[in-house]
Amino acid sequence: MAAARAEAKEHENSHNNCLIRLANPHVAAMKEDILYHFNLSTSTCDFPAMFGDVKFVCVGGSPTRMKKFIRYIAVELGLDHPGEEYPNICVGTDRFAMYKVGPVLSVSHGMGVPSIAIMLHELIKLLYHAKCSNVSIIRIGTSGGIGLEPGSVVITQQAVDACFKPEFEQIVLGKRVVRNTDMDEQLVQELMQCSADLKEFTTVVGNTICSLDFYEGQGRLDGAICFYTEKDKQAYLQAAQAAGIRNIEMESSVFASMCRTCGLRAAVVCVTYLDRLKGDQITSPHEVLAEYEQRPQRLVSHFIKKSLGKV
Amino acid sequence: MAAARAEAKEHENSHNNCLIRLANPHVAAMKEDILYHFNLSTSTCDFPAMFGDVKFVCVGGSPTRMKKFIRYIAVELGLDHPGEEYPNICVGTDRFAMYKVGPVLSVSHGMGVPSIAIMLHELIKLLYHAKCSNVSIIRIGTSGGIGLEPGSVVITQQAVDACFKPEFEQIVLGKRVVRNTDMDEQLVQELMQCSADLKEFTTVVGNTICSLDFYEGQGRLDGAICFYTEKDKQAYLQAAQAAGIRNIEMESSVFASMCRTCGLRAAVVCVTYLDRLKGDQITSPHEVLAEYEQRPQRLVSHFIKKSLGKV
Repeated sequence: MAAARAEAKEHENSHNNCLIRLANPHVAAMKEDILYHFNLSTSTCDFPAMFGDVKFVCVGGSPTRMKKFIRYIAVELGLDHPGEEYPNICVGTDRFAMYKVGPVLSVSHGMGVPSIAIMLHELIKLLYHAKCSNVSIIRIGTSGGIGLEPGSVVITQQAVDACFKPEFEQIVLGKRVVRNTDMDEQLVQELMQCSADLKEFTTVVGNTICSLDFYEGQGRLDGAICFYTEKDKQAYLQAAQAAGIRNIEMESSVFASMCRTCGLRAAVVCVTYLDRLKGDQITSPHEVLAEYEQRPQRLVSHFIKKSLGKV
Repeated sequence: MAAARAEAKEHENSHNNCLIRLANPHVAAMKEDILYHFNLSTSTCDFPAMFGDVKFVCVGGSPTRMKKFIRYIAVELGLDHPGEEYPNICVGTDRFAMYKVGPVLSVSHGMGVPSIAIMLHELIKLLYHAKCSNVSIIRIGTSGGIGLEPGSVVITQQAVDACFKPEFEQIVLGKRVVRNTDMDEQLVQELMQCSADLKEFTTVVGNTICSLDFYEGQGRLDGAICFYTEKDKQAYLQAAQAAGIRNIEMESSVFASMCRTCGLRAAVVCVTYLDRLKGDQITSPHEVLAEYEQRPQRLVSHFIKKSLGKV
């Protein structure tokens, strides 16, 4: 309970002054901080000079998608120059890729809770060392929808676990720790307004299951292992739908929990590639999926431009 | 309990005939199987022709490492040709990378249990569709050691969870499912003998914690979030050491559990980058880590050559 109170207090402080605040007193005492999976270190990089102006961080699973996004947002913000390349800041490692243009940082996080957690620990320390303030972070991802037309976009209200509880559970030093997964309500409303401005695709606000698995964990019938029936699967997904769940992905709960704890306004905007009530395999043609993939990017680009007074 | 019995039976069958056996009756009835994260499909690829001769699958987190490994094993097996490139079989996706030479397949799996589980579901189906038999699969990875000189190699006897239990827990359709994480005993012994043959570096057999997190989940003091002390951390790591644990990584439990269930002989061979009793950050120079990284590859290469009667 003491730890929970400390976490709540940390959260409150961080939102008052809008600086990135680590929930770890040890880091300030470190002479050097090596962000191993970014291949960046405070002793060889000037973080305030490199990253001090960052106000928007966009993250997604695929490095290729995050590279496409930085090119797209550069054009949208009028910050592109003909023939300009955006070098991967995390050169020398293939764990994550990172790109920057103006106030926007674009970072890949791989698939699943452990992978994005590694990225977030190091990203949050990067923003802290860079003395960033008023940072919003948005996951632009892909997901399976529940009862939605494929291509619909879901803005997550609450990330829930596989039992539909709005919690992120973790084992720390062998003990169970449970943290809150609420998203920033105001940011959800702002993003929903951006979708209404655009009128380009269906967008809904709803709850999101954060699963630790793509196959059995999401009730798919097409994995290497499956000991249940179509009927069992339908019962699970229909119970999810009844609980206000609109999509399933694999990173939102730890993303919500860590960003909350460290004073980052956070949102999850995912397109749905299929309706899980109707199937498991992603069968749409490549060009259809490619257009779906751009939808969260278009929404978030509009949000960034609006925040900067550019629309 | 019925599910557990079905799993045990599946396992027994699969070891008798040494074919890959899916633990999912639904797949045989599918007209097409799209392995989405490999960007491969049974309707566009001839799996038996492409993969039917695979006998050894080596997997690791980093795509770059797995590309280096295929070049290395090609030379070791005398299957290389001057100037030959090994194309990525999973072209068109950046989720995973896959390379093949002769009977060896080399596949990346990203970081963490959910990421490797996606890869394994699709890999096991690939081997099944290709009608492979007598396949051994070895994870050649990196890890944090406990009470070992950095650079030591650990062959995992049992993958344990963060509470030191030899179990892999998963939520399937909202219910807790627990599976066994024992490794193939004979394969462990064969690999240990290969290390004795080589006499190049220290190798030990021990238990391995499979953590869902790199920072708090492994008791590190250098993440963005940390609500415990150095003393708490030491108590946890020392308890792990007393329980026969020699290293911590992030994929072994689901790897052991899934491979067992589907009739693959499986082993985990990880080098240790640091001694976690002495620190958290990976501070060794790049060239030292690069040499450490090769050690599991050298060990597994010797094993493959020995299995093929080439040494």
